Amino acid sequence: MLRLYEYLLSGNCYKARLAMTQLGVPYELVEVNIRQGESRTPAFLAKNPNGRIPLLELDDGRLLPESNAILWYLAEGTPLLPNDRFERAQVLQWMFFEQYNHEPNVATSRWWLHFLKVGEERKEALAQKHEAGMAALGVMERWLEQHPFFVGDRYSIADIALYAYTHVAGEGGFDLARFPATLRWCAGVASQPRHLLITQGQLG
Amino acid sequence: MLRLYEYLLSGNCYKARLAMTQLGVPYELVEVNIRQGESRTPAFLAKNPNGRIPLLELDDGRLLPESNAILWYLAEGTPLLPNDRFERAQVLQWMFFEQYNHEPNVATSRWWLHFLKVGEERKEALAQKHEAGMAALGVMERWLEQHPFFVGDRYSIADIALYAYTHVAGEGGFDLARFPATLRWCAGVASQPRHLLITQGQLG
Repeated sequence: MLRLYEYLLSGNCYKARLAMTQLGVPYELVEVNIRQGESRTPAFLAKNPNGRIPLLELDDGRLLPESNAILWYLAEGTPLLPNDRFERAQVLQWMFFEQYNHEPNVATSRWWLHFLKVGEERKEALAQKHEAGMAALGVMERWLEQHPFFVGDRYSIADIALYAYTHVAGEGGFDLARFPATLRWCAGVASQPRHLLITQGQLG
Repeated sequence: MLRLYEYLLSGNCYKARLAMTQLGVPYELVEVNIRQGESRTPAFLAKNPNGRIPLLELDDGRLLPESNAILWYLAEGTPLLPNDRFERAQVLQWMFFEQYNHEPNVATSRWWLHFLKVGEERKEALAQKHEAGMAALGVMERWLEQHPFFVGDRYSIADIALYAYTHVAGEGGFDLARFPATLRWCAGVASQPRHLLITQGQLG
């Protein structure tokens, strides 16, 4: 059985849980409490020297880190990943956008505000992340004004990757009411079969 | 013919030039001078709303941004991308690592120091990027102590993605002499057939 090292509050880990649930792939969860430094212990660093979760462990012990690489691995040969060469590259386009422009700003703002409850000492850094996060949400909004999903007009792992931190962006101080096409897309993602809430481990 | 919107000083653009050259794919270059704001003009934003280069334009006008998505598109079905499902995911693992942990630190330090010649006003930000960049180079070094290349013991687009800014990390203030396995790997990349220097547009 696949084993996912993860933390329930992390949107990056949620991506893998959601995909495995929707694909009907059995898995077990191993909690790594990043708030208590459990991703930086010698034991964990031996599994992933980059010290990040999620980390997927296969039946034979092979290890795969990076949330969007895990999504790709899970989705190969399934309806969650297109077959067309250009559409596959577009899936990656949006997943790289997510890790470069979106996650470091939207997810980090959420982490600082909602979980760490940071205050004045990070006011300037937060303002920078808010500006960059709003720009990323704006890029998504302009695309979603013309398309129901990110690639090929149908639900794929590109949507899972971007949904993970977008639908909880309010917890990072972002007002999604300013992005009506994005809100409509969020509803479209949440209405997919076997959807999972970010606070859920597995389908009950 | 493929058209690449790019800027010669950018390692992200170099990735695409190097892959196309090694694959023998003809291409033409369109310079976008990011130092003069040419990636933020209305005309360019109409092509890539995220305002970044490289941007690949296909014969039929379709557009693909994000350097590592472009690499994947070019390499599908070629020796630069493994066929094995797990190895393909590992290629993505290292490419996402590159865009999340490496490029924002190593490439940005190079840009600030080597091209913008920033001074005291960014001293603290540079120190943070230097620390994070050293950590990323350390993750690479530990892997390369055990492996000749990043995936499957042979040259792939994972190597191209990480080589782009690693081999010029010295321009960002990183001392590569501290990473002997990485230097050996750099030499292995540079010895591949049809290698291209970062300052070269096309094979002459």
